Amino acid sequence: MKSPELWFTEYQTRGLALSFRVKRTLEHFKSKFQDILVLETEEFGRMLVLDGCVMTTERDEFIYHEMLVHPSMMLHPSPRHVLIIGGGDGGALREVLRYKEVEKSIMVELDEEVVRISKQYLPSIASAFDDPRADVLFYDGAKFVRECNDGSFDIVIVDSTDPVGSAEVLFSKEFYSEIKRILRPNGIVVTQSESPFLHFEFLKKFHSMLKSIFLKVKLYTASVPTYPSGFWSFTIATDSPLSKTPFRKEPDGLKFFNSKMLNHIFILPNFLKDFE
Amino acid sequence: MKSPELWFTEYQTRGLALSFRVKRTLEHFKSKFQDILVLETEEFGRMLVLDGCVMTTERDEFIYHEMLVHPSMMLHPSPRHVLIIGGGDGGALREVLRYKEVEKSIMVELDEEVVRISKQYLPSIASAFDDPRADVLFYDGAKFVRECNDGSFDIVIVDSTDPVGSAEVLFSKEFYSEIKRILRPNGIVVTQSESPFLHFEFLKKFHSMLKSIFLKVKLYTASVPTYPSGFWSFTIATDSPLSKTPFRKEPDGLKFFNSKMLNHIFILPNFLKDFE
Repeated sequence: MKSPELWFTEYQTRGLALSFRVKRTLEHFKSKFQDILVLETEEFGRMLVLDGCVMTTERDEFIYHEMLVHPSMMLHPSPRHVLIIGGGDGGALREVLRYKEVEKSIMVELDEEVVRISKQYLPSIASAFDDPRADVLFYDGAKFVRECNDGSFDIVIVDSTDPVGSAEVLFSKEFYSEIKRILRPNGIVVTQSESPFLHFEFLKKFHSMLKSIFLKVKLYTASVPTYPSGFWSFTIATDSPLSKTPFRKEPDGLKFFNSKMLNHIFILPNFLKDFE
Repeated sequence: MKSPELWFTEYQTRGLALSFRVKRTLEHFKSKFQDILVLETEEFGRMLVLDGCVMTTERDEFIYHEMLVHPSMMLHPSPRHVLIIGGGDGGALREVLRYKEVEKSIMVELDEEVVRISKQYLPSIASAFDDPRADVLFYDGAKFVRECNDGSFDIVIVDSTDPVGSAEVLFSKEFYSEIKRILRPNGIVVTQSESPFLHFEFLKKFHSMLKSIFLKVKLYTASVPTYPSGFWSFTIATDSPLSKTPFRKEPDGLKFFNSKMLNHIFILPNFLKDFE
């Protein structure tokens, strides 16, 4: 007697699909904003899927979250106030709050249900919501930034979904102009910036837009197995002269990032030279 | 009227599968050694599949082949004689022969059909077979190494399939002991060494075996989208004090690797620290 096999498939492009064998479905419903699915997978532990796209998994989230957060945190002279746009699973917040220098981290997530479900099913990722320095707002990220006072934050982290639908605005010129305004001197903004392998043309446009706003725009990459092509990128933008050496050691407990890596993450392979 | 969709799926582990939309099947047959499939894919151009596993694609082969070949070529003081075990698609040979220092490169491939099919369908990869410095032998790689004279090669490149079936011997202690014997002083051997993300335990055993033979064993990684998890590794082993700076500039025409990257490829993320 053979048990049936259940697989979840994400169509990453029209010609590429990644499938995960599923032990069971833990939760599946539609929130006000999106389709929310939580799976227990064979290979990647628990997995959060929004609108059919893998957002995070217990097994490989450390790569994405550490690479998203630590480079800018270590290159800022004094990251006291940190804004996270999106990031409902809590992984970026967890990494930000590893720094004792952080006095306050405000996370602005559109969908309350993502936070609720992450606390329930992904406790190792959603582990920092109870930190007294964390403030979680369920609100439109672009609107929040627009309504924010000038010079409010040292670091802004954009932990968004792909640039389609409700997250499209989080890749727009208007949004980044507002982010520039709410950053303090030495301020840094960092965002996930899709796959340099699959989304090269998007990346070119995105960087050229950012360069029309910020003095320095830098790309770096990492292998994130569950994201399209497994070859992922992040983009830092700032008006400050970006330090070449870290202002602090990395916090304890990291599984991926370390300060030695910081010296070279901005050195890119030839096909990405235009983004250096 | 909707056209039917044809997809090829590789089951990378029992819980993870990567699928490619196929425009057409160019060739499919069984050679004396394996099942050989050549596909025209939507996203990755032409693709060579051996025994159901993606070996190479026109679109992402540059990452794998450049990362396999160039670090050791640039860290060797004088790479005149280079042996390639496997590598039937010709990509490793193409990269080796970019160096004018190379006087002779012998490629030992078990399956003549892989070379024939690569010349026919993957001419951009199989582009160096006509180079007068190239010698192609259709022979068992392990046997070739065993029968080889002491100190015959400056560099040995093992461009093999996964460590199962006929390629298992290419990851054995006996094989690497023979490789050590046929290397000259300053000799370097490099091999693909599977996914550090999916095959961590294999990698631990493989490195501990290599360390029982060679003085220096170093891991480095790259994103290779069509290989399992997209997070791939390579291993260099040598008895010489591995230089920290390259002996030569990278050759022209590379799409991925450059000498700036050489300074940091051996700096690894925390979960791979034991391999540094």
